[in-house]
Amino acid sequence: MFTGLSAFPLTPLAGAEIDEKSFVSLIENLVDAGVDSIGALGSTGSYAYLTREQRLRVTRLAVDAASGTPVMTSISNISADEVMRLAEDAQNAGVSGVLLAPLSYQKLSADEAFRLYDRVTAGLSVPLCVYDNPATTGFHFSDDLLVALANLNHVASIKLGELPAEWSAASQRIAALKSRIAGEVTLGISGDARAAPGLIAGCGVWYSVLGGLFPRYALRLTRAAQRGDEDEALRLSADLAPLWAFYHRHGSLRAIATVAEILGIAPAPCLPFPLQTLSGQERLSLEQILGQLPRLD
Amino acid sequence: MFTGLSAFPLTPLAGAEIDEKSFVSLIENLVDAGVDSIGALGSTGSYAYLTREQRLRVTRLAVDAASGTPVMTSISNISADEVMRLAEDAQNAGVSGVLLAPLSYQKLSADEAFRLYDRVTAGLSVPLCVYDNPATTGFHFSDDLLVALANLNHVASIKLGELPAEWSAASQRIAALKSRIAGEVTLGISGDARAAPGLIAGCGVWYSVLGGLFPRYALRLTRAAQRGDEDEALRLSADLAPLWAFYHRHGSLRAIATVAEILGIAPAPCLPFPLQTLSGQERLSLEQILGQLPRLD
Repeated sequence: MFTGLSAFPLTPLAGAEIDEKSFVSLIENLVDAGVDSIGALGSTGSYAYLTREQRLRVTRLAVDAASGTPVMTSISNISADEVMRLAEDAQNAGVSGVLLAPLSYQKLSADEAFRLYDRVTAGLSVPLCVYDNPATTGFHFSDDLLVALANLNHVASIKLGELPAEWSAASQRIAALKSRIAGEVTLGISGDARAAPGLIAGCGVWYSVLGGLFPRYALRLTRAAQRGDEDEALRLSADLAPLWAFYHRHGSLRAIATVAEILGIAPAPCLPFPLQTLSGQERLSLEQILGQLPRLD
Repeated sequence: MFTGLSAFPLTPLAGAEIDEKSFVSLIENLVDAGVDSIGALGSTGSYAYLTREQRLRVTRLAVDAASGTPVMTSISNISADEVMRLAEDAQNAGVSGVLLAPLSYQKLSADEAFRLYDRVTAGLSVPLCVYDNPATTGFHFSDDLLVALANLNHVASIKLGELPAEWSAASQRIAALKSRIAGEVTLGISGDARAAPGLIAGCGVWYSVLGGLFPRYALRLTRAAQRGDEDEALRLSADLAPLWAFYHRHGSLRAIATVAEILGIAPAPCLPFPLQTLSGQERLSLEQILGQLPRLD
């Protein structure tokens, strides 16, 4: 299931409550577009700000609305005990896979992170994706640790976080990592702006923020890369450079949530307090740019 | 209440449960030694790994055992809604103050952090300490933000985190900050190894990991600095240089928790999984060093 386009939708909030109607509409749009899988409650889905009960509710809504499209969900939490409970909840709700970031409060050592994954995977009956997201977790995976984790039972994919800024160095890292892990474990590119080069460089899946809101555009890019049409994939990515600039300045979550608000797909404000979507001149600029981009839906 | 020695005890765990007996003993030891305040459920108290119910229980135990010594407790959480609930719990349990770190998942902007403190303090009836801990939160406070926060109602202290490595630069920062904030808001030094120079440089309080386990030694250092005996304060700190080296290598929490295990003050292992206290040669070295340090209790 961890191949192709994995779309990460927002979890729109209205105050402290989930806006269930707009969340279900987002999922239905992904199914209608034909994404390969859905990453509900990823970082883009604001999982870390929700209670256990809210996460279970959102997971159930996602699985129901997905109508058979595989759904995975993050089970990450600062508390390892809570991770175990969230894993149980997610599996009871019928997910096809789970995502786990080494979320912690005290910075984990590599040994501590390995122990966490070892304990969690031992109790799983669905595949797990290792969620490398140093911008939010502060944890940096070494390749040695990723290789060790890829050998654990149930580990089926690695969502790569930081890559070297220089693309040939990033490609080399991807190739080196691929050569060291079992063939059935996929590598996933995240960071939408790097999706096209990442897929071309050998990643088997794009864990996509863009795809959560605009699955058809993200699928065109993904399919182009999958059939080896590098020029088309890179062109589709380059055409969105003005949007990537907003990602870069505000983070992908604030940028894409603002787009969803502007288009009326999510209520405003839709992010968990105190996170703010864009305002003032930046919001106006984003509105203008949206009018100039290629058709996204 | 945010002056002198504020001692931060461990919250020893036995598996997933609080070891209440050893926690209460730690608090009683602090009261007996005469610390100025107790920071229950600080970073050293592993607050971030505990459920809301556990945090309420530990806070109640601390307030009861403190017998009138002021207790403050962290109300930090990734979710701002949960912060509001934790603030309510803490006040119901009878705390004299609360600590709030800008814990988040997405890195907060300065404006977002200000909104968080503004909302939380508006609903408080006890003073609040701004908890600057970039190593765990990833958030870096500018001096401008600290000054703005110091002007909020109920903000009574700032627990400083990172300071320039070069001590004269650190002193200058402390002096500059003191000159910009209201006189009744204290600045607190954290990072035990810097406590003596921090107090000498003008900090009014030491938020102390060492003091949570060895309050008498920490009080001697604090009182020396308070009466202007710089030499004595610096000597007491320098005598613990071998301990600071373990803090530096493993973080203060793993180091002090290992000390507590070695001395039988906490059960082993006492940290929340997957955090590990020291093992192997490092643990043996720490045991040896403990035998060579001046008397700590």
